[in-house]
Amino acid sequence: MRNRRIELQSTPSGPLRPDHFAESVDEVPHPADGELLCRTVLLSIDASNRAWMQGRTYRDRLDGGHVMPGLSLCEVMASKTADISPGDLVLTEAVGWQEYGVATPDAVRLVQPYYPLTAHMGPLGLNGLTAYFGLLEIGRPLPGECVLVSGAAGATGHLVGQVAHVIGARVVGIAGSPDKLDVLENKLGFDATVSHRDPNLHQALRSACPDGVDVYFDNVGGELLNSVLAVMNLHGRIVCCGAVSQYDRAEVAQGPSRVPGMLITKRLTMQGFITSDYSDRYSEAELRLAGWLEHDAITALDHIHDGLASAPAALMDLLAGANLGKTIVRVGHDPSGGNTKSLRLY
Amino acid sequence: MRNRRIELQSTPSGPLRPDHFAESVDEVPHPADGELLCRTVLLSIDASNRAWMQGRTYRDRLDGGHVMPGLSLCEVMASKTADISPGDLVLTEAVGWQEYGVATPDAVRLVQPYYPLTAHMGPLGLNGLTAYFGLLEIGRPLPGECVLVSGAAGATGHLVGQVAHVIGARVVGIAGSPDKLDVLENKLGFDATVSHRDPNLHQALRSACPDGVDVYFDNVGGELLNSVLAVMNLHGRIVCCGAVSQYDRAEVAQGPSRVPGMLITKRLTMQGFITSDYSDRYSEAELRLAGWLEHDAITALDHIHDGLASAPAALMDLLAGANLGKTIVRVGHDPSGGNTKSLRLY
Repeated sequence: MRNRRIELQSTPSGPLRPDHFAESVDEVPHPADGELLCRTVLLSIDASNRAWMQGRTYRDRLDGGHVMPGLSLCEVMASKTADISPGDLVLTEAVGWQEYGVATPDAVRLVQPYYPLTAHMGPLGLNGLTAYFGLLEIGRPLPGECVLVSGAAGATGHLVGQVAHVIGARVVGIAGSPDKLDVLENKLGFDATVSHRDPNLHQALRSACPDGVDVYFDNVGGELLNSVLAVMNLHGRIVCCGAVSQYDRAEVAQGPSRVPGMLITKRLTMQGFITSDYSDRYSEAELRLAGWLEHDAITALDHIHDGLASAPAALMDLLAGANLGKTIVRVGHDPSGGNTKSLRLY
Repeated sequence: MRNRRIELQSTPSGPLRPDHFAESVDEVPHPADGELLCRTVLLSIDASNRAWMQGRTYRDRLDGGHVMPGLSLCEVMASKTADISPGDLVLTEAVGWQEYGVATPDAVRLVQPYYPLTAHMGPLGLNGLTAYFGLLEIGRPLPGECVLVSGAAGATGHLVGQVAHVIGARVVGIAGSPDKLDVLENKLGFDATVSHRDPNLHQALRSACPDGVDVYFDNVGGELLNSVLAVMNLHGRIVCCGAVSQYDRAEVAQGPSRVPGMLITKRLTMQGFITSDYSDRYSEAELRLAGWLEHDAITALDHIHDGLASAPAALMDLLAGANLGKTIVRVGHDPSGGNTKSLRLY
């Protein structure tokens, strides 16, 4: 049986292009003893996929000539292990951009199915966990404080704003297009929005955050971060989650000139984090996130592309900011048959 | 009786020059009811004096045409208040760069005399408090961790390194001249030193900190901060105390390009602080600092200039990095008659 795959052919030195990728076909692998055969159902497309190509992250730099890595939701087709059975659903980074792959049990995470399955890519996946731990552990907003989120219409950002609402904060989102701002305000209930393309960005931030910003959840980095420093309140917290403005380019831009001066005068804290540092608390977070989903306190936005072959374009779209919510590639058929009701409450 | 004063004539747009200041003479003021007449004994010269002229700090921007502000140790000459008596010693910012001034009791802090009196400018003054709270509350080094200090031969830096030693950390200092590095290593016991002028700064930092840096106490900012980010350990803490590299110039330089990227990948925390945020705990800190002084766990380095007229040059020297330790101007005679023994243990 054939297995379609997408390889990263070469690592880009500037913006990512379609020719950095190549499709290939081989045979579906056979699992050895202790291995699982996984079939990709959904593939998560993330800005970090591009950051990995720069070699400036928490994992080894990607090299060309291998299947492109990424997080996927897979159905277990065959198992030569004791604890995982055919039909089980797992999240794994061991398969990547291909239809089938083998994995060992320590490289997969068994999930309790939640329907629609796309929830495992967004609010119950890494983006939900990132929003949860980044906001609640690093940002620590209090009820009534102002939480500002950049990349607010993105996979993590739209969840950050909604989690901040749950705990009683005032929520302001920054995004780049009128469509996105409209969805944030009118579909997700953000209290105010700002376009990062506003020619008078400082005034726009001041108007949207008249009492200043207590927590800035930063997915973007770059000059926007510098602008936000000017509207932070004393003792504010900046959650450094990502710097998507910096990923799809040859060189990093200049840094925020208000660092460290404004950190001192305003007694600010900037803290970076990686979601996997909290892996021993994933179950706690998933339980709460699933509860919020069930009670419609969180609405998941999905941006779905169809077919493995669309993965490179999906990543380039995301880097260009064309996505609204979580970018997902639907690779294989849904084993639930499109069941849209949660069968199992967390 | 005449009172000599130094006024800031105009605020500099580039490096500070002698002609930004002017001497004047008037009469010693008479205290009104509820006021004290203070005689300046020692004047503290601080990099923040220059930062105040930029208007980017925690206090209002300085304007020309007024007596230059600053912290001083004064002897109370006359008192029209109930709680403070002639002969008492006070620390105050109400007098500034002049021989005499009046102050209200809420603008002074009564000190228990410690001899030599210069200790009140350095280890028992704001620099000691800054080192204490910045290191212990923000940096929080553990025994055996590596603490790196920039501006290590400066008023705050040389105390930071010694406090870090007291709590069992390994201490590395960054300074700009062979003389300073020699004093740090051979007089103050720093474990290693680095010249920020080293043409291969990265390698020098790696050699001095072979196990990486857990706490960076940053007095300097600028490109040095960016370089240090590359040698920080996972979960490291950066104490943003000052940015002396940025004060004596028209425009701020470009910011650290590794912010926020490296904060994320290394899970770093950068936090700014102002010592006065801890003013309700000054007594605790002074007690401990005085104890360390008594037991020679801390050696105070003083850089003393004689006479009020030397204050502008003393500030310019400090901004040029010509000082070793705490820059102090001796303005008036020592009421203790030069007593060098502490009369009162804290």
